[in-house]
Amino acid sequence: MAIDLLLDGCITDVPGFRAAGVHCGLKKGGALDLALVVSDRPACCAGVFTTNRFQAAAVLYDRDAIHSDPRGVRAVAINSGCANACTGPEGDEDAREMARLAGRAAKVDSNRVLVMSTGVIGQRLDLGKIGSGLLEAAKALSDESGHDAARAIMTTDTRPKELAVRAQVAGVPVTVAGMAKGSGMIGPNMATMLSMIVTDAAVEPAALQAMLYHAVDRSFNCVTVDGDMSTNDTLLLLANGAAGNPVIEGPESEGYADLLEAVTVTAIELAKKVAFDGEGATKRITIQVNGARTRDEGRRAAMSIANSPLSKTAVYGRDANWGRFLCAVGYSGVPVTPGNVDLWLGDLQLVKEGRPYDVNEERAAEILALDDIALTVDLGMGNEAVTVWTCDLSHEYVSINAHYRT
Amino acid sequence: MAIDLLLDGCITDVPGFRAAGVHCGLKKGGALDLALVVSDRPACCAGVFTTNRFQAAAVLYDRDAIHSDPRGVRAVAINSGCANACTGPEGDEDAREMARLAGRAAKVDSNRVLVMSTGVIGQRLDLGKIGSGLLEAAKALSDESGHDAARAIMTTDTRPKELAVRAQVAGVPVTVAGMAKGSGMIGPNMATMLSMIVTDAAVEPAALQAMLYHAVDRSFNCVTVDGDMSTNDTLLLLANGAAGNPVIEGPESEGYADLLEAVTVTAIELAKKVAFDGEGATKRITIQVNGARTRDEGRRAAMSIANSPLSKTAVYGRDANWGRFLCAVGYSGVPVTPGNVDLWLGDLQLVKEGRPYDVNEERAAEILALDDIALTVDLGMGNEAVTVWTCDLSHEYVSINAHYRT
Repeated sequence: MAIDLLLDGCITDVPGFRAAGVHCGLKKGGALDLALVVSDRPACCAGVFTTNRFQAAAVLYDRDAIHSDPRGVRAVAINSGCANACTGPEGDEDAREMARLAGRAAKVDSNRVLVMSTGVIGQRLDLGKIGSGLLEAAKALSDESGHDAARAIMTTDTRPKELAVRAQVAGVPVTVAGMAKGSGMIGPNMATMLSMIVTDAAVEPAALQAMLYHAVDRSFNCVTVDGDMSTNDTLLLLANGAAGNPVIEGPESEGYADLLEAVTVTAIELAKKVAFDGEGATKRITIQVNGARTRDEGRRAAMSIANSPLSKTAVYGRDANWGRFLCAVGYSGVPVTPGNVDLWLGDLQLVKEGRPYDVNEERAAEILALDDIALTVDLGMGNEAVTVWTCDLSHEYVSINAHYRT
Repeated sequence: MAIDLLLDGCITDVPGFRAAGVHCGLKKGGALDLALVVSDRPACCAGVFTTNRFQAAAVLYDRDAIHSDPRGVRAVAINSGCANACTGPEGDEDAREMARLAGRAAKVDSNRVLVMSTGVIGQRLDLGKIGSGLLEAAKALSDESGHDAARAIMTTDTRPKELAVRAQVAGVPVTVAGMAKGSGMIGPNMATMLSMIVTDAAVEPAALQAMLYHAVDRSFNCVTVDGDMSTNDTLLLLANGAAGNPVIEGPESEGYADLLEAVTVTAIELAKKVAFDGEGATKRITIQVNGARTRDEGRRAAMSIANSPLSKTAVYGRDANWGRFLCAVGYSGVPVTPGNVDLWLGDLQLVKEGRPYDVNEERAAEILALDDIALTVDLGMGNEAVTVWTCDLSHEYVSINAHYRT
């Protein structure tokens, strides 16, 4: 199927969705810090959430709301600057109140509003600021303001992360678009940082949830910056049916595979944007593991490299210290046989059968001078292949996180 | 039992052990890089090794040697500057040859010699330099040169790690002493970096191995610098019987508990030295987890904080960002109930029942200005307590590891 990737796309490219991004005062300096997204008709919704035991109030709220009615979502309100996590029952009440304020401002049933929060853990939401901000955002809603919403959910991100794709679903033109934020505390596990994907396709909730699991397994669950799994990771997928395609009820339905591919491509592109904008990143690192017995084992081996501080600093320092990559595979828990493992840096094979092969330091230095670094590992165990995306570990990562709150 | 801690002690404080540390040319600039330790009589030996699937040649060699005869060890040769890991069958032969050269130099049966290596992965040992160095080391052997041996095994360590303890074992004075190296690639799991503990107690191999497991569980398996488990982690425990105590055959034997305590104290002190000299460390961090159901769960919660880049950079930046500590507990895999978790920074309780308690930022800043930082977490699940030691993550860690080979 042909998919058109619109790299300058945004969520309001999807018919029936309006959005706004405003500054309500949670962030210093006037930066956008509050997003509101409204669907002009009830949208079906699927979600995946952090598996951290400390789940933010918004995570608990959305989980319940989707569970009790996955069909009627009308709006999503998102703030940056405050995570509303580890805030106890008062925090839970604040999340409910934020949904109420958003419903009132957007003139939709508050029970049809979802919320997301991101920022410092352990601080209460300033509902005064959020209430005024939501009124302002409701006035600013438009079908051209998706970019503002994507900016409003940023924290340490250096750039907004958004795109749209156009695809034919059962012969009907459909748009899928998404936005995401996150560049630190990125180590998702069946979850991600804040992200939202919307489409005008018509899909039943169960089919939508199945698509989301498939997409997350190949996208947000394949990226890491620092391995720290957030308390707030949330990915919502909304489908409002405006495209008029025959309703997709399950995997056997006409158009299921089409939309699955469009949603997965969108999720992968968003996830890569998160990984590559990791805090302090100077390199985009793509790790492909071939020859795994299962996707899970392949991901574990790739993630072990992607989370290894020694592997990440070696790439930052442009040092072809491949022993660190092999070492990380060795402690990943995957029972590799050293003599069966091969490793490439770009197109340069450094390791063959667990031993140094063609360690051309000059060529390695050329490859490591690039912004995009590809590592390929063949485990020699099976036929599964998994790709994982991450970034390097730089001085700037330490600077950003040593003084995050100040 | 009274244990005398000799902080300026070294392995040659133990009767019957001689040692030497020389420069053979594996390291640049004349630094000591080769250690030789000789027991004047056959010593019983126990060992624990890395669980990394890529095990260095010396690890494979020692494991076999101890398995085939745990009673007759006469010498241990240790080089820094080259890990002899991921070097294939040639590397295995190099390890055997290093043992042969050491046996010949020290005039003991080569089958009674163990070897250890540490340094860059993937490079072959220079046996010419090691052969000459071992001859020189054999000449330099003395019962006062333990400090030289401890220096010779260092890599990025900023200081040698060694101590001795004196204890009464079944009423007989016994000495236990050890040395260790390591400050990066420290994430042991049933293992450690290079370390060697020697004693003049008389102990049967099975009892010695049981003591070592107990000690490792409470020492080297409770430290981390970067979570990267090395290919070369090795801890050897040698007992030569020179003290003349009644031979300890098992846990029921007279003196078993005495020696167990002395060995465990030695291992804990060495492990702390490794953690606190972590690459780029500016803070010594002690994490105590109380209220765990099992030691394993307590350690997982503590290690999750200890390995979290965000927790480590917060301490480096003197930022009481306690949400990051809770967040790390939340993704540790331990099924905590958020409302039951308490957390202290030093004596300042920051979290009570999962929510902010007494977040006195001024007092927190005073505590975080100290070199020694204590974090205490109560999981509220059971009665087990576990202590873990680590260090912060600084700009200097990144500098050291971005250019390790250059």
